[in-house]
Amino acid sequence: MPHIPLPEGYPGIRSLFMYSPVTAEPLNHLVQTLLHDKNTSTLTPGERELIATYTSRLNECKYCATTHGAIAKFQLGGNAGLVNNILQLNVQEAELSDKMKALLAIAAKVQQSGKNVTKADIDHAKQAGATDKEIHDAVLIAAAFCMFNRYVDGLATWAPDDPAVYDAIGKQRAEEGYMTKPFVVSSH
Amino acid sequence: MPHIPLPEGYPGIRSLFMYSPVTAEPLNHLVQTLLHDKNTSTLTPGERELIATYTSRLNECKYCATTHGAIAKFQLGGNAGLVNNILQLNVQEAELSDKMKALLAIAAKVQQSGKNVTKADIDHAKQAGATDKEIHDAVLIAAAFCMFNRYVDGLATWAPDDPAVYDAIGKQRAEEGYMTKPFVVSSH
Repeated sequence: MPHIPLPEGYPGIRSLFMYSPVTAEPLNHLVQTLLHDKNTSTLTPGERELIATYTSRLNECKYCATTHGAIAKFQLGGNAGLVNNILQLNVQEAELSDKMKALLAIAAKVQQSGKNVTKADIDHAKQAGATDKEIHDAVLIAAAFCMFNRYVDGLATWAPDDPAVYDAIGKQRAEEGYMTKPFVVSSH
Repeated sequence: MPHIPLPEGYPGIRSLFMYSPVTAEPLNHLVQTLLHDKNTSTLTPGERELIATYTSRLNECKYCATTHGAIAKFQLGGNAGLVNNILQLNVQEAELSDKMKALLAIAAKVQQSGKNVTKADIDHAKQAGATDKEIHDAVLIAAAFCMFNRYVDGLATWAPDDPAVYDAIGKQRAEEGYMTKPFVVSSH
């Protein structure tokens, strides 16, 4: 049960966006810019969703990890095997470029603490082909999901169990982005 | 030295806002809404800045803790003793209401993990007079600074040593909010 009275039928952060529209606006604008807009990063939306998924999984945030895993799957043309490897923290076995593996290693450091990112981590990512801006984007996406995960779990929001719910959210967000109407789970 | 080439003369997150204007916009909008705007919370700007200061101190983010401590001091009419107690993690000795102490205890849980917030923490805050919305705001402010701190330290931005620099930033932000021109440290 949520720690504060949240509107029913809205899972995870969607219930918080309904509860507090004034903070929902900049938060949705942020996630749209970080993950969805095509002109804000040279990482693809699918790659950026994987960084969000991995960080959320490391923070053990069921709602965010499952939702962004589902969005990543749609953004990556249905590659469920890749997303499952990320959700199982099998980065080395995942079907990913060395650049993406290096950026996920930086995300894992950021998840612990910003101070844990070393020059060696940065050098490794650059040698694997990451640009300065892609390193910036990976750090900020991981940092942002350390916020979203804490917001979602710190108020004990509802995380549905049905995988079909996450697939429906994933399809909607991959197609429409984050600035459209909230997702209602009618069966709740 | 920063991990990526950032514009010189701009400390902490300001250098990142210059580097990446497209993400600066929603981030500044978020912090303005969370900390500065008077109609977004029944917590005062000074109280909200203290939650930001405390979370940043727990994350050992020198730039954010010192900056928001300075802003809090100006918002609280110059109460340096209170801010110093927060920066030294002496919450129990700080000149604060029981409600604020309970909200800072929740912020400390969020800093570790959203999952660490318990029903007992929420009940304690409510008994001390916190509303549901104030609990929401404390959780989101603490969560947001887990992002800002990781962004600032994950890219190894420059944190000035001179306390006068932080006082100047503190005065400007307390008066003008977060949507105005960036602070340039001309002596750098």
